[in-house]
Amino acid sequence: MKEINGNIATPAGFTADAVHAQLKYKHLDLGFIMSDVPAAVAGVFTTNKVSAAPVKFDKNIVKNGKAQAIIVNSAVANAVTGEEGAKNVVKTAKLLEEKFGISSNLTAVCSTGVIGVQLPMDKIAAGISKLSKNGNADGFAEAILTTDTKTKTISLEAEIFDKTVKMSGVCKGSGMIHPNMATMLAFITTDATISPELLQKTLSSLTETTFNQITVDGDTSTNDTVLVLANGCSEIPEILENTAEYDIFKEMLAQTMSTLAKKIAADGEGATKLIEVTLSGAPDDLSARMLAKKIVGSSLVKTAIFGADPNWGRIISAIGQSAIFEVPDIELEIQNELVLYHSTPVNFDAALLSEKLKEDKIYIKVDLNAGNGSGQAWGCDLTYKYVEINALYTS
Amino acid sequence: MKEINGNIATPAGFTADAVHAQLKYKHLDLGFIMSDVPAAVAGVFTTNKVSAAPVKFDKNIVKNGKAQAIIVNSAVANAVTGEEGAKNVVKTAKLLEEKFGISSNLTAVCSTGVIGVQLPMDKIAAGISKLSKNGNADGFAEAILTTDTKTKTISLEAEIFDKTVKMSGVCKGSGMIHPNMATMLAFITTDATISPELLQKTLSSLTETTFNQITVDGDTSTNDTVLVLANGCSEIPEILENTAEYDIFKEMLAQTMSTLAKKIAADGEGATKLIEVTLSGAPDDLSARMLAKKIVGSSLVKTAIFGADPNWGRIISAIGQSAIFEVPDIELEIQNELVLYHSTPVNFDAALLSEKLKEDKIYIKVDLNAGNGSGQAWGCDLTYKYVEINALYTS
Repeated sequence: MKEINGNIATPAGFTADAVHAQLKYKHLDLGFIMSDVPAAVAGVFTTNKVSAAPVKFDKNIVKNGKAQAIIVNSAVANAVTGEEGAKNVVKTAKLLEEKFGISSNLTAVCSTGVIGVQLPMDKIAAGISKLSKNGNADGFAEAILTTDTKTKTISLEAEIFDKTVKMSGVCKGSGMIHPNMATMLAFITTDATISPELLQKTLSSLTETTFNQITVDGDTSTNDTVLVLANGCSEIPEILENTAEYDIFKEMLAQTMSTLAKKIAADGEGATKLIEVTLSGAPDDLSARMLAKKIVGSSLVKTAIFGADPNWGRIISAIGQSAIFEVPDIELEIQNELVLYHSTPVNFDAALLSEKLKEDKIYIKVDLNAGNGSGQAWGCDLTYKYVEINALYTS
Repeated sequence: MKEINGNIATPAGFTADAVHAQLKYKHLDLGFIMSDVPAAVAGVFTTNKVSAAPVKFDKNIVKNGKAQAIIVNSAVANAVTGEEGAKNVVKTAKLLEEKFGISSNLTAVCSTGVIGVQLPMDKIAAGISKLSKNGNADGFAEAILTTDTKTKTISLEAEIFDKTVKMSGVCKGSGMIHPNMATMLAFITTDATISPELLQKTLSSLTETTFNQITVDGDTSTNDTVLVLANGCSEIPEILENTAEYDIFKEMLAQTMSTLAKKIAADGEGATKLIEVTLSGAPDDLSARMLAKKIVGSSLVKTAIFGADPNWGRIISAIGQSAIFEVPDIELEIQNELVLYHSTPVNFDAALLSEKLKEDKIYIKVDLNAGNGSGQAWGCDLTYKYVEINALYTS
């Protein structure tokens, strides 16, 4: 398996395009992915009870297991928009059906942007009329952004059944410049051959240790969506569970998802640093992941890291307030410096550690000595810029 | 029942003092409350698994139901300090026993400040030697502060059994200027006559709707403690449950606790505004309180209010991500302006609402139309100052 240059249309049988539909002032804001043939589709969605209209629509597509196209707009989330919002999702899919002949039952629709505002359907229609089958595939990664400061992509290839199988992923993080803008969206294409059921099982399981382990500000958006399309155009035989081929495929998907997840964390609103927490010695993996995420989500830990302040007490306090088991014997390393051993403070060079905390990747390692469970989580620091981005009224 | 001027020693039979034990550079840092006779004691404590040494000690005092003195130091939390920390709590109580003759089994010890640092016992001993029985009772409210910008006190009196019963409370909020400083501490004295069991029951129940409903940054400290002493020196008969007298007493305690809780929220680190969320129409009170607290704790809601930005979508999203029941019919008012009705956006004057959001008290009212449960929560906005306070390395 190796990383290659590419875009979301790099796997065989995929095309993509991106246009400016005037939803944003001047940037690309409407992206489109199409497969030559119907692809196996799998998806995971926000658990927010106030899910957006497109999320409800896409859940049905995923239930059917087949999709051939994905259309994504930024700037307007189409969330908390009632009946009209639901109708606009269907209209969008129908417009694509008219233009490209792909059944609206095979088109996933995604939105990200302001909550509580209706999609401007005249602009969406005009934008769709400009889409072409072999268009600006590189632009897709840009068209889905809101306040992200950079595009987030990865492309991989591996040999499976002696043929080259490719996989590409793009995503956007939760960003807010306009009020209410949020959302994590990720799209992954591959020319591997795999059933929708096995694809869904693999996606769901890997989501637990990748996208579900990142946090920027603890808020779960109304629109979060991850979709994977596998169109089989590599022409390999079907990948079955418990085979060497499946192991390779799963590794590709794991690397794609964890790379995208870390890119979202590093580009969190106002962030200057990526924080990685590795926690071991918990009773089980689930509680290890939960505690790792609590540490990386603590405002006090996040501000301390912004300030390059080695005040480890905040990390221990974050563990103590969230653990549902006893933690009498904690070991803690920050940037490879041991600061706590057997729950007893260790003398360390605070000035040196403060210097190390000025780096742009921060590694926190915790051993709770209470079992064999382990897990990781990723986040970012909490900065003046975060407050600025989210406090300014710009609409 | 009416509010009166007073301090923590205003109820009959209480005295208090405060001195500078040089734990802080120049402010009062050691406070002392004493009752003429052993008092009924009740307490609630942090649920953080990494609780501080004094918390463990005080839990035993409360279990016995009687206390006569409370000693509190600020600047050092005596948390994550191992065996030595536990011994220093006992030593502190013993020093008071030597000086005032009060059994160390009747003395509660509280600390707030830096985590992971041992109490400087020479300074504590010197400070205790300076304490006197009728000292600077007004200073007590100052001696317990860390980064609070003001003292937080209330005194009440009411007629019970045709006699005047008094109650006083003081507290401090969670503040951090030195790294790792945290803690909510509250102390309440009353000359009412009541059993420790009924006092504990009343305190525990009122804690759920007062102190447990405030949030500054979502972190629960290692030292949070609320202690109530009732010494009976008003010489009224014992207050029993399900009586008119009990109703008055409970109302006094409720007002004392909710006043102190709101003062902590309003003086949260870097805060410019108090936020009050009132949520009704939940299936039960518990979920109403939980959701109200989620709203007031959301970083996105807190930054929006700092920026006087009426982006109600963040409030709805905070509800959606935390509700464990369906919420198809939400009504939302901000500063008495209706913005959402039957989960459908209402046209409102955004400029007017933005003006109203510049006030220093922000009222958010939510009706979920899903039951009869209701609850309130209090918090504060998230500001540049919060980041500054918590990012600066000052030790």
